[in-house]
Amino acid sequence: MQVAVMGFGTVGSGVVELILKNKKSIEERCGQKSLDVKHILDIRDFSSHQLANLFTKDFNDILNDKDVEIVVETMGGLNPAFDFVSKCLEAGKSVVTSNKELVAAKGYELLELAKKNNVNFLFEASVGGGIPIIRPINQCLAANEFLEVAGILNGTTNFILTKMIDDGMDFDEALKIAQANGYAERDPSADILGHDAARKICILASLCFGKHVYPDEVQTEGITNIASQDVEYAKVWGGVIKLIGRAKKLSSGKISATVGPCLIKNGCQLASVSDVFNAILVRGDAVGDTVFYGRGAGKFPTASAVVADVIDCAKHTDKRKLIGWDDAENDYVINPFEQSSSLYIRAAVTDYNMVAEKVKALFNDVQILESDNKNEIAFVTPLMCEKDARTKIESLGLEIKNILRVLDY
Amino acid sequence: MQVAVMGFGTVGSGVVELILKNKKSIEERCGQKSLDVKHILDIRDFSSHQLANLFTKDFNDILNDKDVEIVVETMGGLNPAFDFVSKCLEAGKSVVTSNKELVAAKGYELLELAKKNNVNFLFEASVGGGIPIIRPINQCLAANEFLEVAGILNGTTNFILTKMIDDGMDFDEALKIAQANGYAERDPSADILGHDAARKICILASLCFGKHVYPDEVQTEGITNIASQDVEYAKVWGGVIKLIGRAKKLSSGKISATVGPCLIKNGCQLASVSDVFNAILVRGDAVGDTVFYGRGAGKFPTASAVVADVIDCAKHTDKRKLIGWDDAENDYVINPFEQSSSLYIRAAVTDYNMVAEKVKALFNDVQILESDNKNEIAFVTPLMCEKDARTKIESLGLEIKNILRVLDY
Repeated sequence: MQVAVMGFGTVGSGVVELILKNKKSIEERCGQKSLDVKHILDIRDFSSHQLANLFTKDFNDILNDKDVEIVVETMGGLNPAFDFVSKCLEAGKSVVTSNKELVAAKGYELLELAKKNNVNFLFEASVGGGIPIIRPINQCLAANEFLEVAGILNGTTNFILTKMIDDGMDFDEALKIAQANGYAERDPSADILGHDAARKICILASLCFGKHVYPDEVQTEGITNIASQDVEYAKVWGGVIKLIGRAKKLSSGKISATVGPCLIKNGCQLASVSDVFNAILVRGDAVGDTVFYGRGAGKFPTASAVVADVIDCAKHTDKRKLIGWDDAENDYVINPFEQSSSLYIRAAVTDYNMVAEKVKALFNDVQILESDNKNEIAFVTPLMCEKDARTKIESLGLEIKNILRVLDY
Repeated sequence: MQVAVMGFGTVGSGVVELILKNKKSIEERCGQKSLDVKHILDIRDFSSHQLANLFTKDFNDILNDKDVEIVVETMGGLNPAFDFVSKCLEAGKSVVTSNKELVAAKGYELLELAKKNNVNFLFEASVGGGIPIIRPINQCLAANEFLEVAGILNGTTNFILTKMIDDGMDFDEALKIAQANGYAERDPSADILGHDAARKICILASLCFGKHVYPDEVQTEGITNIASQDVEYAKVWGGVIKLIGRAKKLSSGKISATVGPCLIKNGCQLASVSDVFNAILVRGDAVGDTVFYGRGAGKFPTASAVVADVIDCAKHTDKRKLIGWDDAENDYVINPFEQSSSLYIRAAVTDYNMVAEKVKALFNDVQILESDNKNEIAFVTPLMCEKDARTKIESLGLEIKNILRVLDY
């Protein structure tokens, strides 16, 4: 069986190397006599590469080659990935992608196109890097109705938060170290503003709840507003701040979908996820909570997920994998501000003791977090809507420095 | 499509209830118009049960019913499960089981029988209850060569150890609470002596490394020898004691397979697994470490895994799932005493200071664990073979109270 790889960057080169390295066992697991990479598409020059004869700059070399039954897309971005992937599916080739932007924006369309052409469109590597998560949700937990999916979906921000938690760094310092280590890009905005995590929660929510969720429907907040003080107050409370992508099914049948920094208790499986690792919690009506942990990025972890999909395509040449979701109605994703949650609030104060008394009177069962700094107050509220909390705080004339959700895992 | 369930205990009744509860979405995910339970086999009387008309005491009602394409075995034990399952496979029916004893003892034979008859034999629920683990290893991580698989595989012992760690209980007290909560049986020996975990590590090792490992080849030690002092010394060291089932591929191609209490560092994903939860770490050459966490037992979590397998069988009526392993040569599993590891050792002493000096002189880079009790000494050695460590300790004339492996996750 012949495979083509489009995009020879970190992940694409990892895919080619991994197929060569574990060729024999991969072929056995495919139930195929052979599995070979026939073409590699990249616009850059690889004429002195040891696999130089496989490289092409012309997409049509792949599209028109009838021997190529599986195409791997690891180019990233929407253009020309969407066009190339669509044409491959239409030509009757199965496609495997690691491109979260593509799946989050065009997943429904591409899955429909795959269905129409009786081929596979698989994307295990688009969420959680090497962590098995798409197939476990789609197959292993298929007996469940899903209630919630949530996780640490972005390694860059988790690395930065880990430096802030473990080493007491502030955000800017931690970001510089992440960049120096190659964990953050020179323009880190897609990571630190939460957009990368938002794409991934779209994919997870679409798969769990059966209707496509688009990135602009996800209320997204990054970690740039997290101060060292917030990290310290979280410790006083007995937990850590993590950037959590989260989608929840509501009793109305609609869902809420958010990305934002949250407080989670130590002892919870997500709290001990450090550095660039990712972890995803899936809550099903039968299974309860399951958590999947591992490397969320990197050459070989991501290639591991891509090649698993290639193997699955090779095993299912005559029969499509049943994976997909519907398009959603316009008001399917609701405003999470209206959902109640326990909240962490930090605000500037001039008279600490007076404000503390007022806060206690205003919120039932509020937990004030102790600190030596009496120029601000931090506390954790009982379950309430964020807009109600904001109204109450404003009635006290306080300036809110930060307000974060507290998760109950 | 018609299903039969053999054994209407906790898991079997959960399977029937779950199929009824989520019927519509399960049928959709099967790609089948209908999925119904036609027979339930149990020797007990269920004549007043609301599904009374489905019950039978005669296995032949299932075996001879051509409409039944999938049989669920949740009876447990080897007899008559092995005979019934064999006959179903020979009759061309796919079988799904939650029976770890059956898979650990007869997995190779039954997988061969399934292959011969072109049907499926699936067992996701036999390890880790509801946690997706068999399919992730077999499919999602199929591009990897596996280096190691290890985990907290028994909820009863993890509950007991959690009580000893968090509440300072001794073993006997914690066991009583586990029994009072229904987490431990009246005769708890299969759990506390490690036999249950041994069966599960056999299944995981067979799947990861491709050759059948039998329970009597696993060096198995339970938790009955763990004293409160060991738990306290582990805290001083910065970790916890967990019962870990573990199989490792060696450079010789052979494997080591053990079950025993081990020290693991806080911060590792396995350290924060509490109460009756399970977690399994899989180390692949491409993906690195992945961890799968969730409820390792219980009615609906286990039923979730069984029904996922039923769905997979229903989707693969015309094509077998590629799952299986070979029989192993006699000396495939080697003696782990010869494998080096860092070791925790606790021994009785009469002259603490003198012994501490001797221990420091005898072991390079040894870490002595401080305590007020000077009638014993506890320390963590560098990497070494257990038998060498024992020889050294005996040369000091010390009585070993406990010796445990220290894991490096």
